[in-house]
Amino acid sequence: MSYKDFTVEEIDVVMQEAWSAFHAYRKYSLKQRADFMRAIAVELENNSTSLLQTAMKETNLPEPRLRGELSRTIFQLNSYGEACERGQWLDARIDTAMPDKTPPKPDIRKMLVPLGPVVVFGASNFPFAYSTAGGDTACALAAGCPVIVKAHPAHAETSTLVSDIILKVAAANNLPQGVFAHVYGAGTDAGKALVMHQYTSAVGFTGSFAGGKQLFDWGNQRKVPIPVFSEMGSINPVFLMPEKLTADPVAIAKMYSGSINLSVGQFCTNPGLIIGIESEALDQFANALREEIRNVSPGKMLHPGIMKAFNDKKAIALQQKNVSTIAEVENNRDDLATPTIAAASGKTFLENPVLHQEVFGPYSIMIRCTDMNEMLEVAKHLEGQLTSTLMATENDIRNNDELVEAVKNICGRFILNGVPTGVEVCLSMMHGGPFPATTDPRFTAVGADGIRRFARPMAFQNWPDELLPDELKNKNPLGIWRTVNGELSKT
Amino acid sequence: MSYKDFTVEEIDVVMQEAWSAFHAYRKYSLKQRADFMRAIAVELENNSTSLLQTAMKETNLPEPRLRGELSRTIFQLNSYGEACERGQWLDARIDTAMPDKTPPKPDIRKMLVPLGPVVVFGASNFPFAYSTAGGDTACALAAGCPVIVKAHPAHAETSTLVSDIILKVAAANNLPQGVFAHVYGAGTDAGKALVMHQYTSAVGFTGSFAGGKQLFDWGNQRKVPIPVFSEMGSINPVFLMPEKLTADPVAIAKMYSGSINLSVGQFCTNPGLIIGIESEALDQFANALREEIRNVSPGKMLHPGIMKAFNDKKAIALQQKNVSTIAEVENNRDDLATPTIAAASGKTFLENPVLHQEVFGPYSIMIRCTDMNEMLEVAKHLEGQLTSTLMATENDIRNNDELVEAVKNICGRFILNGVPTGVEVCLSMMHGGPFPATTDPRFTAVGADGIRRFARPMAFQNWPDELLPDELKNKNPLGIWRTVNGELSKT
Repeated sequence: MSYKDFTVEEIDVVMQEAWSAFHAYRKYSLKQRADFMRAIAVELENNSTSLLQTAMKETNLPEPRLRGELSRTIFQLNSYGEACERGQWLDARIDTAMPDKTPPKPDIRKMLVPLGPVVVFGASNFPFAYSTAGGDTACALAAGCPVIVKAHPAHAETSTLVSDIILKVAAANNLPQGVFAHVYGAGTDAGKALVMHQYTSAVGFTGSFAGGKQLFDWGNQRKVPIPVFSEMGSINPVFLMPEKLTADPVAIAKMYSGSINLSVGQFCTNPGLIIGIESEALDQFANALREEIRNVSPGKMLHPGIMKAFNDKKAIALQQKNVSTIAEVENNRDDLATPTIAAASGKTFLENPVLHQEVFGPYSIMIRCTDMNEMLEVAKHLEGQLTSTLMATENDIRNNDELVEAVKNICGRFILNGVPTGVEVCLSMMHGGPFPATTDPRFTAVGADGIRRFARPMAFQNWPDELLPDELKNKNPLGIWRTVNGELSKT
Repeated sequence: MSYKDFTVEEIDVVMQEAWSAFHAYRKYSLKQRADFMRAIAVELENNSTSLLQTAMKETNLPEPRLRGELSRTIFQLNSYGEACERGQWLDARIDTAMPDKTPPKPDIRKMLVPLGPVVVFGASNFPFAYSTAGGDTACALAAGCPVIVKAHPAHAETSTLVSDIILKVAAANNLPQGVFAHVYGAGTDAGKALVMHQYTSAVGFTGSFAGGKQLFDWGNQRKVPIPVFSEMGSINPVFLMPEKLTADPVAIAKMYSGSINLSVGQFCTNPGLIIGIESEALDQFANALREEIRNVSPGKMLHPGIMKAFNDKKAIALQQKNVSTIAEVENNRDDLATPTIAAASGKTFLENPVLHQEVFGPYSIMIRCTDMNEMLEVAKHLEGQLTSTLMATENDIRNNDELVEAVKNICGRFILNGVPTGVEVCLSMMHGGPFPATTDPRFTAVGADGIRRFARPMAFQNWPDELLPDELKNKNPLGIWRTVNGELSKT
């Protein structure tokens, strides 16, 4: 199926509607927003058969993977809806008046309020969980913002099905017209028009560095700049510390072969960089990884564009001086991606920024450092990352404080003795990291704290109780956590 | 006294030192950071005589004003220090492992960690509270970030005294070398070099739109963009609602004359725009304001540059078509600013964006709307503001929901029946607002929530208790509020 790109004029109509919807929707209670989100979740479940069939056809992702992703999407809507209703995200603060102070201190009460219409760009690799009814949409609806989704062209039909469900739920529940909209744009014009429109108040994006950075720049070049949350990927370095590696190089290799090839390597948390120190144990690790990789079946990637990008970027990496291929799966089918492990010395890696770039797909490069000092240099020269991982014993950690601190400072999530793939949806999750992993490392794209991306604090000064929003009224009718005169309380 | 601008090379040395200090200082406990801040506060108090004398000489601000500002600065250091130690700002979240889940859920714990060295640009109108040891510095130190202050050239000697105090306290308490630095730069080169330096991680600025926007643009144009928090001023609209105005136009005029002329109008929350509806009451208000203004003594502004800007911008506003002067203080001294009230119709204001611009000083323009519809149009066409104020009865509010919502949506602080000047330092304060009031309305520059500007969340996955930071250990040794498996708790 093919869809016509929206024109600038059509986008203007959509945004005008979203702007009027904003003035109605932001007054919806937390419970009303949560009910809307839960109703969408129910209808996604009710339509799962057609959703899965369409997504399988469009993305080449296997049914179990898509079924898991759809469950995750439903879980996100329900759990962010619950978080919305519980209201902790509002950061409500109340300081009551002190009329006897000089000068008298007025009553001041603060809470988060929605930013305005949010434009969401669907992600190619998550047709459900980071697309039309995905994490960004759920967070924005919870915050009180209308959502305008630009369908990802690689799964526009799935996106349309999901959009139809949301629009049906919105109509059935009398949500304001324009609270959700769905637009198409395979070229860049529609995307640019969306980001630049005066009524767009924030943008959520998951995808390539080039795409995400462009949106960020447009967002900042507007007359009124807006926040653009681009999650642009990462090479997710893994440091193999000496004592840990020596203890069981084969087990680590098995674990990492699985992580590198999970979903044909198409996760933004894929471990694309593995750093060790020259040793017998590192050789054993490399040999075991080679054996493991050879047992992996080549898989079909999301769409031909991603497959081509994988082959091109991998070829560029492998053509760099002093880079070798240490493992490659036998594969004579052009339509399947070949899992590949490259290797290079620490010196080569430090000197060649090309090797720091993400190769999206089943690929990882192993860096052989001469010693701990070189490993530390590698850590210090890494760009911002979604995750960093240490494979380490307590001794490894206690004896290498500078390395641990350097690795910690570049990432959003710091994993010990695990794999970076697998992003748990929970409040403690941080999915985001220093640039270029994301454009704003102060916010997460996963977990209910992501709601805050689409809100800003507003203070009410000297308002009588009956005119304040329920969230800030003296009697706390919603029973939410608030900081009252410096103390957190639910009463 | 005159100070030599720092060269790009000198700034590089300063930033290298700040970067090494960062790696030491961010490991300081919350208590150690708070102790450092409290020690600075004590020494500011101990040196108040010389600080006040120098600041009076440099800024023309009278002693009571400066004494109050110094107390506020000391209060900020102490109260943000206390907030730092209490740790609520860390947003600590713990989700414990669920090994029986499929796939097993790992232990994840999240807290805010410092961004890195923070560059602070001193404000001309607050030589203490928003300069060298001011709000941005206090927030950054609490967050765990080293601070580099660029002295404001208009009070560089005061800034140097404060800097000397901080450096002395840092040395006496063995803080890492480079945790605080002070640089000079009357031109733009030093400022640009500071913002563009690879080790600068965030910027705080209070001043003009032109200056703040330039820093914001530089911050976004870097290879690695950084957050720039520019607080750029505002015209702080005041809406005189009909029932309230009719009840007591004279009292409102008296209150506003005081607010407009407070500290020679040199507050970013100065009410520069007063909007009413043509009526007898509005005439009475205008007459009373005229009388009140005539009793104001002209005052000396901060420095000749600000005085010139006031005269220039006021002249531009008064030269606009259909703008009249309704009150002006008699003043035949060139070195004193003349308090002035202008007036124009709603139509004139709507058609002429020049009248929407801030005239920093004792000036306000009164807009006479034909009716409530025109007042609503004015509200809808206003740019982002630090504050908006309604002078209104409950009836006025209940009968004009659309206006109230439009006014609320453009501001950071929404005041009822008061004046916008006077920014209480407390947790519930929001000092910041939609662009162009500030570059990032998601954060406040006043109150302990401002600490969050200089931090980002980081998650630890699968770390054993003994290797976690104290803030996240099972037993909660610091006794801070944390969200554990979804529930806020202090245990």
